[in-house]
Amino acid sequence: MMKKILNSPEEYADQALQGMCQAFPHLYAQSGESGRVITRAIPAKDKPGIVSGGGSGHLPTFAGYVGPGLLDACAVGNVFAGPAVMDCMAAIRAADNGKGVLLLFGNYGGDKMNFAMAAEMLEAEGIRTRTVLACDDVGSASRDERLKRRGVAGLIYAYKVAGARAEQPGATLDDVAEIARRALDNTVTLGVALSPCTVPEAGKPTFTLADNEMEIGMGIHGEPGIRRGPLLTADTLADEMLTTLCEDSALEAGDRVAVMVNSLGATPLEELFILWRRIQSALRTRNISWLPPQIGRYATSMEMAGASLTLMKLDDELASLLATPVVSP
Amino acid sequence: MMKKILNSPEEYADQALQGMCQAFPHLYAQSGESGRVITRAIPAKDKPGIVSGGGSGHLPTFAGYVGPGLLDACAVGNVFAGPAVMDCMAAIRAADNGKGVLLLFGNYGGDKMNFAMAAEMLEAEGIRTRTVLACDDVGSASRDERLKRRGVAGLIYAYKVAGARAEQPGATLDDVAEIARRALDNTVTLGVALSPCTVPEAGKPTFTLADNEMEIGMGIHGEPGIRRGPLLTADTLADEMLTTLCEDSALEAGDRVAVMVNSLGATPLEELFILWRRIQSALRTRNISWLPPQIGRYATSMEMAGASLTLMKLDDELASLLATPVVSP
Repeated sequence: MMKKILNSPEEYADQALQGMCQAFPHLYAQSGESGRVITRAIPAKDKPGIVSGGGSGHLPTFAGYVGPGLLDACAVGNVFAGPAVMDCMAAIRAADNGKGVLLLFGNYGGDKMNFAMAAEMLEAEGIRTRTVLACDDVGSASRDERLKRRGVAGLIYAYKVAGARAEQPGATLDDVAEIARRALDNTVTLGVALSPCTVPEAGKPTFTLADNEMEIGMGIHGEPGIRRGPLLTADTLADEMLTTLCEDSALEAGDRVAVMVNSLGATPLEELFILWRRIQSALRTRNISWLPPQIGRYATSMEMAGASLTLMKLDDELASLLATPVVSP
Repeated sequence: MMKKILNSPEEYADQALQGMCQAFPHLYAQSGESGRVITRAIPAKDKPGIVSGGGSGHLPTFAGYVGPGLLDACAVGNVFAGPAVMDCMAAIRAADNGKGVLLLFGNYGGDKMNFAMAAEMLEAEGIRTRTVLACDDVGSASRDERLKRRGVAGLIYAYKVAGARAEQPGATLDDVAEIARRALDNTVTLGVALSPCTVPEAGKPTFTLADNEMEIGMGIHGEPGIRRGPLLTADTLADEMLTTLCEDSALEAGDRVAVMVNSLGATPLEELFILWRRIQSALRTRNISWLPPQIGRYATSMEMAGASLTLMKLDDELASLLATPVVSP
């Protein structure tokens, strides 16, 4: 079992959020009665708002992406648990400045239900919302059942693209929702897990894998994936992940992509670079070009070992929005 | 044992460096016959050079800090092993453009010996060097024997300060060495380990700790620290680390510091923020002020679980150099 630095399991999520806001008070503010709502320290004006939400234990996802050029507010739940309805409402209220609010989050039942209830209640107050769900995890359902797929690291590209669009002069809520939807329609992710993490309140690992085993397609909360099998070499793994994603999203020679190689937590940068070495070579062979890649910890499961690969097929507008500067630690 | 994504243990260090340079070719270039020398993609001109070096397995330390405002070149060894003399020489040659080269690295026997041999041989070619060692780890020797201390995360502050100074117009090698020395004289670090990492070629964990145990003061390669004991709460741990560092460096009310809360690898951001929550409160109680903190993975030991706290006491010049922008992924 992985050991943790904490005061008590019950306080883990709240104290992590407190510390994050105390570390970067020029960027983040805590609000909501529960303290589980993170907003920009300096609220934006005169633009469509963007709100996300989800469980704790995935930093910098979700709350870390609040900031100029990204999210306006985020509602956070306990470790691996969805945010409360009240917190979803508080986040939406904080993000609204008369132009409506995009709700942009992963395709999980609890999150969907609570955001839907919050949106419905706020409609009565005259706050207009649109919802776009990330369903980028190809390990969780087939292409035919794409809308059943879970949302994982691909959500970060949607934050970036929608966040940049929302700050363009004259952008409407529909514009922002449209580009977020387009980004996610073009985004696919596949993850692999090597070892589990421990949810503080549960106190034991979320799953077990034998010493020579890995699971392809496992979700970021330890949900079952495509298959378990022997630990593959980095090159074989990179080839399999890339092939799966290219086939799923019908990528072809001449296409251009954004690429993220994401550690689920414990897997070090060294190993992400070993994967990248093969991925870039395989992309070149396929005659697919790429922007400077994102390689690091973007969406984690605390100390889980493993990695995910995300590809977003680009058009000129997506590429240009992706290149817009943001303010984020 | 923690599982790894790799092709073969023997290729781990080289393939990680290859992948890093392939990921950021606009920033990094591989050179040296061995490929174990990382230089800036666009070499600097007309300034004193800065070279560092050390083992693999600590990314972004050491090679990740090559770039504008930071290092000119870095010589890298195998996992947890010092760089070869030939690579130290190649790094120094690459960094020199007639104004001499500062050798800035951690206080480890192998690194010292190899850099000293390299410097001596290059002196014959007319390349002038100065050496400044990081000895910031208070867990490795007493204050009285400060020069026996190991170098750990505090080295990053020295990179930043010396890197900024070197790019100021007219800066000399002596100026850069002087400010690096001053930064390190004012910098102390204390680390704690919760669980080990595995060196790929060894294939087994570097040490063992019982399920309820931690080690205070353990080095980043698993070297023995101050004491082993039961797992402390985050607040107790933060208090003990801060008290040890404040006493060691005689920090007083009214002082101003830079602060880094660094994960050794597996420990997630959530837990660094839980530590920060207490650290910032304790700094406030002591009437010590701080710049925006560095909280993340700056100097790691692959997937080791644990964290380190670094404090650098600031004067106006150090604070100003620390605030100079850099280019780094």
